[in-house]
Amino acid sequence: MYFEEFKVGDIFTCDPILITAEEIHSFAMKYDPHPIHVDPEFAEKHSMFNGIISSGLLTISVMWGQWIRAEKFGNEFIVGKNFDYVNFTNPVRANDVLTTIVEIADLRTSSNPNRGEVTLKYTVKNQNDEDVILAQSKALIKTKASISTQQSTIY
Amino acid sequence: MYFEEFKVGDIFTCDPILITAEEIHSFAMKYDPHPIHVDPEFAEKHSMFNGIISSGLLTISVMWGQWIRAEKFGNEFIVGKNFDYVNFTNPVRANDVLTTIVEIADLRTSSNPNRGEVTLKYTVKNQNDEDVILAQSKALIKTKASISTQQSTIY
Repeated sequence: MYFEEFKVGDIFTCDPILITAEEIHSFAMKYDPHPIHVDPEFAEKHSMFNGIISSGLLTISVMWGQWIRAEKFGNEFIVGKNFDYVNFTNPVRANDVLTTIVEIADLRTSSNPNRGEVTLKYTVKNQNDEDVILAQSKALIKTKASISTQQSTIY
Repeated sequence: MYFEEFKVGDIFTCDPILITAEEIHSFAMKYDPHPIHVDPEFAEKHSMFNGIISSGLLTISVMWGQWIRAEKFGNEFIVGKNFDYVNFTNPVRANDVLTTIVEIADLRTSSNPNRGEVTLKYTVKNQNDEDVILAQSKALIKTKASISTQQSTIY
């Protein structure tokens, strides 16, 4: 979708996705090898969650993956600039099913007529309707004016 | 390290890590399958970066993985609460070597004497000394008082 096609207040609900024990383990072994994510005995006896939980980095990566698969940010997407915040509000465990809801929170035009900035608010819920992530990010998106602009001068 | 062992201003430099084309591709296929990360022809002709770049989620996951491997957040680490912000300041490409520098930015005691809150500031630099990520997060860490406290009453 081009910048002009989004409206503040638009809400998009991404396809639910199952988080497996295998994915929690393999992601954590690469990117978050703390025992609360990879050592069942430690996690049960010595963590506040009484068992293995997903790395927050996995949860937010899954969230973003589902948003990209929703195809609202297609070829018109330029780049993700930042996250304004990411709050991990509840633990995610194996066999949880997560649903990502994305709200268009703000739209800003740029001095460059070929692009605009979109602010996205994310709520990720589990199968019990509990929030597991609340987050916000900003991205640059092409405007329709960019269609007739030479690639080299869009940015 | 226990909460009391950290000091505001402490700086930890994590081991450098190589980002490979294969890792950029395999991560993006799972969690960020946008053509700017997985389609070399699209990325070259239609992105502002003139070639494949790493998903920002991969870069921040690599950053966190290197921090966990530095073993300052060992068994005393309770949980990561949030990121206050994550700014993607420069693109990351295949064969970049990233170094994560972590500064203890703030330390707050809790009404619960078994734990405290640590604020971490992250700077991730590439081999050209350019910042690729600037970020900040908060985590809960056990205090030494927790050592003699029953597990069930620490949290």
